[in-house]
Amino acid sequence: MNAVNRRIVLASRPHGEPKPENFRLEEVPVPEIGPGQILIRTRWLSLDPYMRGRMSDAKSYATPVQIGEPITAEVVGEVVASKNPDIPVGTLRTAFAGWQEYFATDGKGTRPVDPDAAPPSTAVGVLGMPGMTAYTGLLNIGRPKPGETVVVAAAAGPVGSLVGQIAKLKGARAVGIAGGPDKCRYLTEELGFDAAVDHRGADLPGALAEACPKGIDVYFENVGGAVFSAVLPLLNPFARIPVCGLVSAYNATEAPAGPDRLPGLMRSVLTNRLHIQGFIVWDFADQAETFRQEVGAWIREGKVRYREDVVEGLENAPEAFIGLLKGRNFGKLVVHIP
Amino acid sequence: MNAVNRRIVLASRPHGEPKPENFRLEEVPVPEIGPGQILIRTRWLSLDPYMRGRMSDAKSYATPVQIGEPITAEVVGEVVASKNPDIPVGTLRTAFAGWQEYFATDGKGTRPVDPDAAPPSTAVGVLGMPGMTAYTGLLNIGRPKPGETVVVAAAAGPVGSLVGQIAKLKGARAVGIAGGPDKCRYLTEELGFDAAVDHRGADLPGALAEACPKGIDVYFENVGGAVFSAVLPLLNPFARIPVCGLVSAYNATEAPAGPDRLPGLMRSVLTNRLHIQGFIVWDFADQAETFRQEVGAWIREGKVRYREDVVEGLENAPEAFIGLLKGRNFGKLVVHIP
Repeated sequence: MNAVNRRIVLASRPHGEPKPENFRLEEVPVPEIGPGQILIRTRWLSLDPYMRGRMSDAKSYATPVQIGEPITAEVVGEVVASKNPDIPVGTLRTAFAGWQEYFATDGKGTRPVDPDAAPPSTAVGVLGMPGMTAYTGLLNIGRPKPGETVVVAAAAGPVGSLVGQIAKLKGARAVGIAGGPDKCRYLTEELGFDAAVDHRGADLPGALAEACPKGIDVYFENVGGAVFSAVLPLLNPFARIPVCGLVSAYNATEAPAGPDRLPGLMRSVLTNRLHIQGFIVWDFADQAETFRQEVGAWIREGKVRYREDVVEGLENAPEAFIGLLKGRNFGKLVVHIP
Repeated sequence: MNAVNRRIVLASRPHGEPKPENFRLEEVPVPEIGPGQILIRTRWLSLDPYMRGRMSDAKSYATPVQIGEPITAEVVGEVVASKNPDIPVGTLRTAFAGWQEYFATDGKGTRPVDPDAAPPSTAVGVLGMPGMTAYTGLLNIGRPKPGETVVVAAAAGPVGSLVGQIAKLKGARAVGIAGGPDKCRYLTEELGFDAAVDHRGADLPGALAEACPKGIDVYFENVGGAVFSAVLPLLNPFARIPVCGLVSAYNATEAPAGPDRLPGLMRSVLTNRLHIQGFIVWDFADQAETFRQEVGAWIREGKVRYREDVVEGLENAPEAFIGLLKGRNFGKLVVHIP
């Protein structure tokens, strides 16, 4: 076994967009495992926008990553050593191991992955946190009804693509917002969205209005910014807005200039009786098994499709993550560690 | 019977604060009633902040009052003529009669008022729309749990005072925001609020933080503006914000200057998993009977108290309404028509 654990730690807190110098690749000894513990070797490392939040020390639902510590991440890894009789060597598990090759744990918070049921990387993608974020937020808060219009941004990403496909399965109309013609084509031609809007186009508000002739009943919010501004005037009475992310604002360093749009939002909340609700996937932890069974079945039946964007090598994780916040990935971004 | 119907019509749409010249007192003939109709003579006329919205022609859930038409209002009146066998002369009913002395109707949308059960004016107050707004918004959206902190502004008014008292009945801590020491004393000494904060004081954010040492779990939003800004940093994870009014913004004529607070709100929605939901009382129309029975019982048992601010004479309605938007009333504002 390789005696070196390569890991990427937070070298400094990003101010605005993360830069390569905020990350540092280190080589440390592979941890020893004690009684009851297992050693996991990372095979797929999930990169997700929420990690930007963990790199800041602003108050949030999660404690920030400390300087010098590996960045948070869920991984799919192989058990390469075990002093835990319940977890055999050679099996695959998910674990919150962080951006590193080896991770010692007593197994709490890890979960077995069956490589015969689905490709293992999906355990941190369409069948993992991103998928469950889409599933729980849309079904618990969005609650789309047949004939309603559901809009989601970052729609070619792992959360948005599942939001749109589940909306379709529930009989709603799915409109996706994505960056560039390739992603938009993917939404309508491969995933079955009813319409796709390119947010890089000249007139996002106009294009979105055209794609939503009957207004918007559910807006699944994961980006914020200009998309939210375009959505706001199109919201129908009793529209629901699950909020799971605000990628466009993660790199913001100061409050944007005026005018102050808050009173306008609140007026719309009142006159349209909007329901806006923030959530994270753990708020619905008790729905994890239902989620995996239902979405797993949809995948096997060909009713749900997914796409992965695989980057090779731990050393390329920082660059891939920086690109993720700019929408450079096409599909669920995972780092494969050979 | 007096053959003249005095009424107050919308002379022009207010720009910003309503002014006396936006209203006009008219004398028109008392309407004739046809088969199946009744004639109602207004005894108590309810003045409520929502009427400001009806004076504008901005898109909303309700159609605006037309120029030259009486302003919308619910009244308690006496049936003074009837060609409807189900509705006897001499009985009292609520009706959406508007700012006028006489109103002909087939009775739809009217409701009998029992003068022996409670003072008739309460049918447009604590046992009417304002009371039901407090009851349904707090219990359906706010859902206070024992030990939680509930904050409400305009707390000496008909909605806020009931919100705080119901919060107490549900075991929560009630903090009211009101204008001036008299109203604040009324909240703590007469209504049993745990704390009262004077929004005219020098440091509203500081005073509110002091009154809410464990943060805010439910903020019942009926004013907006500076109060909402003071509330926002104190909200606890999973806080609920029923939104039924934004009095502070009703007279606004343009988007306020920056900074833009919308991204900050959405960040708080996400990190604190806030639940913000607009509503109007009719969204819970099926709870009207439960509301009247439960709050009626609380009043009879002395568990809920209410206060009315009675203005004499229809001709004084415009001035009273202008004062309402400035918080000059103390208790539910009603116009008594002798």
